[in-house]
Amino acid sequence: MEQKPPIYLDYQATTPVLPQVAEAMAPYFTEHFGNANSSHQWGWKAEMAVNKATKAVADLLGAKPSQVFFTSGATESIHWAVVGWARKNPTGKVLISATEHKASFGALEWAGELGLKTEILPVDSFGLLDMEALKQELDEGLPTLLSVIYGNNEIGTLNPVQQICALKQDYPKFRVHLDAAQCVGKLAINFNELGADYLSLSGHKVYGPKGVGALLIQDQGSLANMFSGGGQQKGLRAGTLDVPSIVGLGTACAWALENMESEPQRLQELRDYVIEKLTSTGMVELNGHPTQRLPNNVSFTFKNLSVDKLLVKLPKVGFSSSSACTSGQVAESHVLKAIGKAPDEGRRTVRFGLGVDTTKEHMDYVADTLIAAMNEA
Amino acid sequence: MEQKPPIYLDYQATTPVLPQVAEAMAPYFTEHFGNANSSHQWGWKAEMAVNKATKAVADLLGAKPSQVFFTSGATESIHWAVVGWARKNPTGKVLISATEHKASFGALEWAGELGLKTEILPVDSFGLLDMEALKQELDEGLPTLLSVIYGNNEIGTLNPVQQICALKQDYPKFRVHLDAAQCVGKLAINFNELGADYLSLSGHKVYGPKGVGALLIQDQGSLANMFSGGGQQKGLRAGTLDVPSIVGLGTACAWALENMESEPQRLQELRDYVIEKLTSTGMVELNGHPTQRLPNNVSFTFKNLSVDKLLVKLPKVGFSSSSACTSGQVAESHVLKAIGKAPDEGRRTVRFGLGVDTTKEHMDYVADTLIAAMNEA
Repeated sequence: MEQKPPIYLDYQATTPVLPQVAEAMAPYFTEHFGNANSSHQWGWKAEMAVNKATKAVADLLGAKPSQVFFTSGATESIHWAVVGWARKNPTGKVLISATEHKASFGALEWAGELGLKTEILPVDSFGLLDMEALKQELDEGLPTLLSVIYGNNEIGTLNPVQQICALKQDYPKFRVHLDAAQCVGKLAINFNELGADYLSLSGHKVYGPKGVGALLIQDQGSLANMFSGGGQQKGLRAGTLDVPSIVGLGTACAWALENMESEPQRLQELRDYVIEKLTSTGMVELNGHPTQRLPNNVSFTFKNLSVDKLLVKLPKVGFSSSSACTSGQVAESHVLKAIGKAPDEGRRTVRFGLGVDTTKEHMDYVADTLIAAMNEA
Repeated sequence: MEQKPPIYLDYQATTPVLPQVAEAMAPYFTEHFGNANSSHQWGWKAEMAVNKATKAVADLLGAKPSQVFFTSGATESIHWAVVGWARKNPTGKVLISATEHKASFGALEWAGELGLKTEILPVDSFGLLDMEALKQELDEGLPTLLSVIYGNNEIGTLNPVQQICALKQDYPKFRVHLDAAQCVGKLAINFNELGADYLSLSGHKVYGPKGVGALLIQDQGSLANMFSGGGQQKGLRAGTLDVPSIVGLGTACAWALENMESEPQRLQELRDYVIEKLTSTGMVELNGHPTQRLPNNVSFTFKNLSVDKLLVKLPKVGFSSSSACTSGQVAESHVLKAIGKAPDEGRRTVRFGLGVDTTKEHMDYVADTLIAAMNEA
């Protein structure tokens, strides 16, 4: 089977909703449309659907349903974890790494506005958090929250979250928030075994809908509420529950759990195939860690091909030339800068995000086109 | 045509998504699923849809598209207006009325936590804001934000928002946020003619989806951002745009505008029909203002029928026995308390919210059943 463009390779920016997810959501728009807090049959039907979805999210992540709180997406979840913790710990300190998603930088700034100390920790050339720098900060003895990206959205590197969470034993005032938006459904995650305090995820990175996400919370008393109002979600995150989207997220998580043994492995093989094919030319450098990386992330810096040229060569391939979630502009990537790339290298860097519809033929098409372009250049 | 239960009369808690709204949303889940900020064909398709929806929201509300910012719903919009303004005005004052939605009480509390003065203004027995109390607060001369509910979600009373906004001429440091969640699509609203500073709305109160809303903003520099991150929405409200829901909200707003001449009038006639039929028994009291009220809201206090009894008599009718958005519990309503109702009157009070599928036969069924029950009691 020949695979021709258009080819979507931007699954780290967003994913399509799976057909079965869209199907599961549909009746909750028009037929079972009740407010999950209403005390009548329309409300009860909605509430039951929310409960089922909550369990599916919890099951995928080794959490208890009571630890799952729905939000509008990872950007809100990250702000809630950081700002909510900051509001409860005004004399504390918030740390992030230099390769976080921009949402964490925004949340950090808000924590600073509230009077907390804030620090941005360095990473190594693979994008791995500097553990010694972290320990030095913890040695100060303040109540400290680290918000750290589990799997990097640009370069794919997986941070050593087990080691990070293990530090909680030595530093009892240390709290950890994992931004797991890119990892959920790609890696086996066990929130309670890890011992993380908070974990953020997003629906539209896991074949669920946009506009919904969740924050897993270990200790509900440790965070100020995100929104207060109608008392939903134990009063911690008010607002009418987005029942169809929650159903969609739950269905997507159930699918991810069912396919956890096969799909990430399949993606990883495709990933390694295209990495090998391109790096063997000697004209392409892989960014991020070679093995400790998201199974579906490829980030390349080309020696002699600019992004502009790439866009011309692959006009019908969807990929990203800077951070997935950073609006359009080809600004210098703070992630590439943090791992030591020069601005001109950034302008020769692209990310391919692999997903459910990605095939070996897609990888060959992209790799062959790029190899031809490099040979021309 | 005989109309039998189930009859849904809780349109102020939530509305179904109109079939044409669900239809408009559908392709954006699976086919046109791109991230509106991605620089490729998938992204551009999504961005165009968002722009069209933004214009539809603006057109319904007499606003410019550049004034429309999408949120996860009215609870977030209200928090953004109040907390966002508070963060920019730490020496200011925030006022709300005693009959606000609970989300405004939550936001007020957060403003207080930030060190601002906060006050809850009284209302009269109809639920109308006490204008003299407002002026006294403004006479203090501080930068002041009033967050006020335009159409009350429990008792339907419409606050005098024209008069309130007109006070901005005498008090240049006065800013007004209108919680218009219940009014949008029911009343002709012109944001710029009114001269309001901020206006909140919700998708799922106007036959659009849950999990989406908007905040209209007059002066973008006057509010701190809600979430910072990927730069979406001019950096004021980051987070991947929820394209399908935004398309749904836009489609619902376009429908509301097309039907603005007919549907609110039809609802108002049904409202007045059931009010007349029940109050003429002398055993039912209407809550809220008799004429300055939402066209689709009916709130009754029965003289000799408790909510428990009503629920038995109308088991397959969806209505609310306390605030729509307050989770299940039949707590004492702060709105009823504010207009002078005793707790035992609250336990004899119900709200019927009329909507697109409501007919005269529905009103007759409910009224006749209740009259029979009152006569039995």
